[in-house]
Amino acid sequence: MNVAVGFTGATLDRADHERNDPAALERALSDWRARLLKLDGLDPQLDQEGQLVWTSLADLPEDAEPLLLGYIAGKPHFAPLRQTERHAAARSPSLFHMLGLMPPDQASLYAAARSLIDWHQRHGFCANCGSATAIFRAGWARRCTGCNAEHFPRTDPVVIMLAEYEGKALVARQASWPPGRYSALAGFVEVGESMEEAVSREILEEAGVHTRNVRYVASQPWPFPSSLMIACVAEAEGDTLTLDANELEDGFWVTRAEVRAALAGDPTARFGAPPPYAIAHSLLRHWVDGE
Amino acid sequence: MNVAVGFTGATLDRADHERNDPAALERALSDWRARLLKLDGLDPQLDQEGQLVWTSLADLPEDAEPLLLGYIAGKPHFAPLRQTERHAAARSPSLFHMLGLMPPDQASLYAAARSLIDWHQRHGFCANCGSATAIFRAGWARRCTGCNAEHFPRTDPVVIMLAEYEGKALVARQASWPPGRYSALAGFVEVGESMEEAVSREILEEAGVHTRNVRYVASQPWPFPSSLMIACVAEAEGDTLTLDANELEDGFWVTRAEVRAALAGDPTARFGAPPPYAIAHSLLRHWVDGE
Ligand SMILES: [Zn+2]
Ligand SMILES: [Zn+2]
Repeated sequence: MNVAVGFTGATLDRADHERNDPAALERALSDWRARLLKLDGLDPQLDQEGQLVWTSLADLPEDAEPLLLGYIAGKPHFAPLRQTERHAAARSPSLFHMLGLMPPDQASLYAAARSLIDWHQRHGFCANCGSATAIFRAGWARRCTGCNAEHFPRTDPVVIMLAEYEGKALVARQASWPPGRYSALAGFVEVGESMEEAVSREILEEAGVHTRNVRYVASQPWPFPSSLMIACVAEAEGDTLTLDANELEDGFWVTRAEVRAALAGDPTARFGAPPPYAIAHSLLRHWVDGE
Repeated sequence: MNVAVGFTGATLDRADHERNDPAALERALSDWRARLLKLDGLDPQLDQEGQLVWTSLADLPEDAEPLLLGYIAGKPHFAPLRQTERHAAARSPSLFHMLGLMPPDQASLYAAARSLIDWHQRHGFCANCGSATAIFRAGWARRCTGCNAEHFPRTDPVVIMLAEYEGKALVARQASWPPGRYSALAGFVEVGESMEEAVSREILEEAGVHTRNVRYVASQPWPFPSSLMIACVAEAEGDTLTLDANELEDGFWVTRAEVRAALAGDPTARFGAPPPYAIAHSLLRHWVDGE
């Protein structure tokens, strides 16, 4: 399986072994080559080539803590965590445009920074006892000032999948999406289930279709706020749809030719495909090309 | 890929659409056929066949809230969340023995209950504002009494993988494991990385080995406390090991014959394999059988 996926390919050395080493963090902070990610709220700033813009630690806002993302080409790279400015979890309108401009490796780096900042901003208190928490492990954890519990950034596995039946695949849309956009079904993996079980459960819940033989295709991070997207294909046992009206506005079975037209951006296509940086796009590409 | 994995196969209808329906929960609670999981702390109780023991809601402890796991054969099944008795997160010695006795579908059901209870017990407060949280969605979420933020059970994706090089696979051990036990390397997927990137990062961090061509094998839940285990194989670019002494006590490359002997429980085997309910066991089985 060699489909291209977005939000991957950053050449970031996360330097896990340095996170528990305050001296290493001090060295990184006093390294004159250290880079600080430029952000506008939670949005990135991009240059003409869609590359992330970085500045020096001298530009760290007074109310911000530096989070050590890791090292690129030996240089420490930090993200600023603002302490007084709370960002909305929702994506800004301009962000969608910028995601289309960023190469996957830049989007990947941005994803790490955004998910990490967002997690810190929503985890200032201990879920275990309610006391305040403070940054530790160079920005990759928080520790409770009351009960000492350690808290780590959350990554939520989400399955996103095509059911297929007699050469057709199931796509659907939520009412909040751009007009004409259809995509794969998706949902969170719950405690006590495998990826494969989550795929079959979600297709049954959302579309009323029983499936078997779930096949893994690809994965990517999705930093809104911090999912791990896991793309799969499953064989449907029938094509009668019973859509969950609370989740989906519409859904139908599409042919490979219809998916090809959608991926090509053909204005006469039966539906509009998700953008290339979304793994649903990669999954549709994989399905028309290979399976 | 059709390797048997533990902690899967429960015939549980999670009834997602009922979780937001207080009337449905009331009906389930007043259903005389309703079943309540018998627990001893966080340990299950098993009958002679390794099946979970259930009782009626009449046995719900006074300090407990019923969590709706879902429906089996149309009957509502609940787990008890004790409000005053806090369980240790550590596994009891007898639990390891019981895990060996439970068929995978029973272990799967137990995993859902255990992870859910454990999550509730450690999330009585809002990470966003520190106020108390209360159960909602029939036991599948908590809501903040202060800021109204909704919190959902956490599932942490963990990659567990074999590096392979010239027909051999890499196994290693942590100092805390039973004597002689070796297994696959493993680690948490971090924000901003794909499964495949996490696999390569972890092998590099823990063993100093560069890898490529990561292949997905299988997944299973692991309720200690609530991981999604994702098993993979990766091609190593060399066999020189630089083990991370903070994580690993020892590690070496093994042949298929050596893995076969370990899986068979041969007392002369070079190492002791992980137990059948662990996905590392399934991964080793997959590697000797198929790849
Ligand atoms: Zn605490
Ligand atoms: Zn709150």
